[in-house]
Amino acid sequence: MPHITVIKVRGYHCDFYGHVNNARYLEMMEEARWQYLETGMGLEYWSDRGLGFVVAGIDIKYKRPASPGIDLEITTEMTESEGRTGYIHQIFKDQATDKIVVDAMVKFAVIDLKTGRPVNMDGEVAAGFDKIRAATEGSKE
Amino acid sequence: MPHITVIKVRGYHCDFYGHVNNARYLEMMEEARWQYLETGMGLEYWSDRGLGFVVAGIDIKYKRPASPGIDLEITTEMTESEGRTGYIHQIFKDQATDKIVVDAMVKFAVIDLKTGRPVNMDGEVAAGFDKIRAATEGSKE
Amino acid sequence: MPHITVIKVRGYHCDFYGHVNNARYLEMMEEARWQYLETGMGLEYWSDRGLGFVVAGIDIKYKRPASPGIDLEITTEMTESEGRTGYIHQIFKDQATDKIVVDAMVKFAVIDLKTGRPVNMDGEVAAGFDKIRAATEGSKE
Amino acid sequence: MPHITVIKVRGYHCDFYGHVNNARYLEMMEEARWQYLETGMGLEYWSDRGLGFVVAGIDIKYKRPASPGIDLEITTEMTESEGRTGYIHQIFKDQATDKIVVDAMVKFAVIDLKTGRPVNMDGEVAAGFDKIRAATEGSKE
Repeated sequence: MPHITVIKVRGYHCDFYGHVNNARYLEMMEEARWQYLETGMGLEYWSDRGLGFVVAGIDIKYKRPASPGIDLEITTEMTESEGRTGYIHQIFKDQATDKIVVDAMVKFAVIDLKTGRPVNMDGEVAAGFDKIRAATEGSKE
Repeated sequence: MPHITVIKVRGYHCDFYGHVNNARYLEMMEEARWQYLETGMGLEYWSDRGLGFVVAGIDIKYKRPASPGIDLEITTEMTESEGRTGYIHQIFKDQATDKIVVDAMVKFAVIDLKTGRPVNMDGEVAAGFDKIRAATEGSKE
Repeated sequence: MPHITVIKVRGYHCDFYGHVNNARYLEMMEEARWQYLETGMGLEYWSDRGLGFVVAGIDIKYKRPASPGIDLEITTEMTESEGRTGYIHQIFKDQATDKIVVDAMVKFAVIDLKTGRPVNMDGEVAAGFDKIRAATEGSKE
Repeated sequence: MPHITVIKVRGYHCDFYGHVNNARYLEMMEEARWQYLETGMGLEYWSDRGLGFVVAGIDIKYKRPASPGIDLEITTEMTESEGRTGYIHQIFKDQATDKIVVDAMVKFAVIDLKTGRPVNMDGEVAAGFDKIRAATEGSKE
């Protein structure tokens, strides 16, 4: 059960073509990821442990245009991790029609802020994502 | 031989971590694509024929961080097209070190602005990209 | 009693200096103004009457820097109008300390979307702002 | 004789209304100010002396809308300084018609990056602005 963030499309999110600009979705995704990472515990969980997040890649598919007034429902979910690489899946739906607007996969690393080096996705990192999952599910019941 | 756009990184391109923000690269890519599309002929070539461009997807890899003062050299090149789908490859290098900062593939369609429908990448569309290629090569000799 | 919007500062709002960038506040102000304009009635009130909003000027004072994690409380209030000119006052406070971060005055016009011409701030325009004021006060009691 | 920066309006600079968004002008102004501050000497002049720039306020008037394809000619000029406060005047013209699009006054301070305190606009600060003025005039002759 993924975490949900809702953002209403405004005129300033759009470009000349009247639809949300392709770059703007990445800012909305970042907003949703920060809300996701503080679910059930606050961002201190990560900063207290000296951990930071680095985006290594984004594969984004633009399915449908979005216009002002639309409520975009963004689901954010960690889908897999292996070694020092994690993947967060983010989907934008038009809340009124339930149709997919954007489908994006974010590849990321968790780094030790002292060394700047990626750490393994186990131990306290895995425990953090477990807390988020538990809090997200709790809030939906 | 690809088209080249140079953008100097400024403080406002960066985020709290002091490096160019992941969303900002997409704006720089859009700037570079517009410069590319007007090479050797002006954007009227496209607007006179009632043609527009729609980004269908972006697969972007962030290889190295970029800080203020760095000159980013963006190469933009149409790499392939098939039917109604085209691909533009955009690479960001740190001009001083020649190291790759970002490597991105943009999937796009050319649409008929009257119908909103994608058109085939042949005829005047292919001719337009040929003009860009010829002008880009000419300017490098 | 002014309308209130709360926005949490994120890393992507900030620039190289680690504080919210001066341009970004204008986007936050625009977000707050749209929320203000739909208070108690929805944006249809304006669109149904063929009315649009044009910003004619902004006088903004940056009082204190804002860093990631801070909750910015933005108050938005129409302060005066005369003829075809209105003023909306927007103040950003750090919600934790109540200290002023930004103080901005926005000069605007309401235009008839058909003619593009500014209209007088009376009749249905004044009635709209009265509805907003009534709804804002009601929500605080 | 002011410093000149030219920026071509692109679709991504504009919002739903098809014109450059009010917040975007502040980014263009920041770009023009950085180009101004490095005229004739490079930004090292300031960083070598441990000096930084802080925007204290912006008073911006939006005179005419700007659409994609327009070349905006931005003039940037330090107009006055008194004690620890300086003013930079920035005007946007449509290069084709010479009509004013935006007229903005930026109030700023120069700070000692070690102490974070504003310094007087004399000595090396005044010398820096003199160098800019000299280089700007030289380039126009």
